[in-house]
Amino acid sequence: MTPSLPTTRIATTSFEVRTRGRGFVELDDKLRTGLAESGLREGAAQVFTQHTSCSLLICENADPVVREDLERFFAKLVRDGDPLFRHDAEGPDDMPAHVRSILTGVSLSLPVHNGELALGTWQGVYLWEHRAAPQMRTVSATFIGY
Amino acid sequence: MTPSLPTTRIATTSFEVRTRGRGFVELDDKLRTGLAESGLREGAAQVFTQHTSCSLLICENADPVVREDLERFFAKLVRDGDPLFRHDAEGPDDMPAHVRSILTGVSLSLPVHNGELALGTWQGVYLWEHRAAPQMRTVSATFIGY
Amino acid sequence: MTPSLPTTRIATTSFEVRTRGRGFVELDDKLRTGLAESGLREGAAQVFTQHTSCSLLICENADPVVREDLERFFAKLVRDGDPLFRHDAEGPDDMPAHVRSILTGVSLSLPVHNGELALGTWQGVYLWEHRAAPQMRTVSATFIGY
Repeated sequence: MTPSLPTTRIATTSFEVRTRGRGFVELDDKLRTGLAESGLREGAAQVFTQHTSCSLLICENADPVVREDLERFFAKLVRDGDPLFRHDAEGPDDMPAHVRSILTGVSLSLPVHNGELALGTWQGVYLWEHRAAPQMRTVSATFIGY
Repeated sequence: MTPSLPTTRIATTSFEVRTRGRGFVELDDKLRTGLAESGLREGAAQVFTQHTSCSLLICENADPVVREDLERFFAKLVRDGDPLFRHDAEGPDDMPAHVRSILTGVSLSLPVHNGELALGTWQGVYLWEHRAAPQMRTVSATFIGY
Repeated sequence: MTPSLPTTRIATTSFEVRTRGRGFVELDDKLRTGLAESGLREGAAQVFTQHTSCSLLICENADPVVREDLERFFAKLVRDGDPLFRHDAEGPDDMPAHVRSILTGVSLSLPVHNGELALGTWQGVYLWEHRAAPQMRTVSATFIGY
C-alpha cells in the first residue's frame, strides 16, 4: 500500500506532421503544447508514430550537422536499392525505410517534471522521415502523471 | 491540479511464446486479448520480453518479404560466427543474438484508444527470435489507462 | 469503466552516474533502491537518461565478454574518426557517440512485479557510455503502479 503517493491521471493527444521527404522534424513544440493542455506536472509522456517507414528519436539539437552526419551514416548502413532487398514495390527507398525505422524505433518514453518534458539541455525529440518523398505522419502522445 | 482528467488504473498480464528458431512471431492477438480482459479503453500498453537474445519490434505486417529482407539484412550486419565475437559458448549465433536484441530492443510502448491498440494500418507487433534453435519466450504486458 | 482495477500511483527519482569513459555501468541496484523507496509493487518503471552520447540498454549480465564483444562490434560499425562525420568539434568519438546513442536508445520501459523489477534471469540494465572520456550522467526513473 502506498497511500501517500499521488493518484495518477492521464491525457492523450495526437497530431499530424507533414514531412518534406528524408529528414528530421523537431516535435518538441507540439509535445510541449500537448503537455501544457493536459495540466499534468509530474510523470511521463509516451510518444508513438503509427508508421513503419519513419521513426522517433532523441537527437542532439544544437548543431544541424549532427543530423546531416546521421543521414549520411544511415544511407551507407542501409543502402537504397541494395539488391539484398526484394521488397521494393514502392521504390529503392521502400525497404531501407523499414529497416531504418526498426533500427531507431517508433516509440519513446520521456519523463515529465515541473510541467515540462524533462529532457537534457542538448536533447530534442525528432520524427525522422525515411522515405524519399514527402509524407503526412501521425504522432500520438499519452501523458501519465499528476 | 488536474482533477478533471480520468483517474488511471492498471492491469498486467504475461504469456509464453514458442518460437521455431530465427524468425518472427506476431503478438497482436495475444496483446489484444490481454487488453480486452483489462477492460481499459484509453491509455498505453508497455510490452516487455525477459530475454537477451530475442527482441520486440513494430514491423510492416502486410508483405512477408519485409521480414525476409530484415532477416537477410541483419544476417549480413551481424554475422554468425564472426571471429570478432569471443562469447560463443552456445554456438555461432550466441553473440549475434545478443547484438541483434540490443539493436532492436526488448520493450515497446504502444498507445491504446477506444479499447484497441492504436497501431497504424500496416503496423504489427512482433517477437523476433534471434537464436537458431526454437525457444520458449516470456512476454509481459502492462496496460495503464481508464 | 474498470472500477475493479487498482488505482495507479506514481513516484519519480533521479540519480547521477559517474562513468569511466567508454564502457558499461550496471544500474540495477540504483533502480531497485528507487523502486523500494516508492513502495510500489506492481506496474512499470520508465528509465531515461538526459544525454545524446550515452544510452540505456538491457544486456546479458553474466559474462562480461558479452559487453566486450558489444564494444568491439560497435567500434567497427561506427568508426571513431570516420571521415564521413563532419561533426567532430569534441574529437573523433564525438559523432560516433551520437550515432551509438541513437542506435541503442536513451529510454527503457521495464515491468514491476512483486515489488521487484521483473527482469529475466540474464537481464541487467546498463548505462553505456559512448564518449572516450569519463562523464557525469543523469538518469531519471518514473515508477507507475500500485
